[in-house]
Amino acid sequence: MQVYEFKPIGYVRTSAETLPRHWSVSEVEGAIVIEAEYTLGLRDIKAGDKIVVLFVFHKSPPFTHEKLIQKPPHLNERKGVFSTCSPHRPNPIGLSVLEVLDVKDNVIKVKKVDMYDGTPVLDIKPYIEYETRRIE
Amino acid sequence: MQVYEFKPIGYVRTSAETLPRHWSVSEVEGAIVIEAEYTLGLRDIKAGDKIVVLFVFHKSPPFTHEKLIQKPPHLNERKGVFSTCSPHRPNPIGLSVLEVLDVKDNVIKVKKVDMYDGTPVLDIKPYIEYETRRIE
Repeated sequence: MQVYEFKPIGYVRTSAETLPRHWSVSEVEGAIVIEAEYTLGLRDIKAGDKIVVLFVFHKSPPFTHEKLIQKPPHLNERKGVFSTCSPHRPNPIGLSVLEVLDVKDNVIKVKKVDMYDGTPVLDIKPYIEYETRRIE
Repeated sequence: MQVYEFKPIGYVRTSAETLPRHWSVSEVEGAIVIEAEYTLGLRDIKAGDKIVVLFVFHKSPPFTHEKLIQKPPHLNERKGVFSTCSPHRPNPIGLSVLEVLDVKDNVIKVKKVDMYDGTPVLDIKPYIEYETRRIE
């Protein structure tokens, strides 16, 4: 089976010492510092935007099959891994929807951070709400 | 800089010959066929669910810096790559929000497909709407 390799486009920076379990319940501020070579690609990101940030759960140990079913910390039930946001998943890729506070050069200041300082970022995409789009 | 390696957890199957530009304007049906070893992790995915599917834009050529600014097909303006859903991006990872029609064993039947047949799937997550969650 083919393996796909990705290089970080940048890293998360935050001085928060404790992090909430999920972006949806976070008011933590921080920054995404993008590699200088990609700065031009940030041109249309503005304060107030919501962005989807894909990142690596770089502190997760290798996945094992006992983790196919897990109990999320905020629920009293066990769930299949693909119905959870757990950092323990076959491919340790995380997704957070962050609010942009400011963009300057290669640094995006953001709110709603739930990633550790030093987290490798793989991609940034515009956030597109499911319900607001209609079949054209 | 460290490189991260990911192996597909499964593949997209669709018989559609033409695909819409984006999941938000798609009614195409298809399936995600997951590797048998991960079947248990699908246990809590049900018909009617919205799922976030992360996948590889496996037909994209290597990224070049001319692609830092691109004109999306449905817009008359050029945008920074991180404000677009283009398949041409530094890490060719795609994100689609699909509607689940049915789950049987390791096969998820889905609607709103905008990926090619044979697209490698990296992860499946629950779709969490930005506005419906509140700070706890």
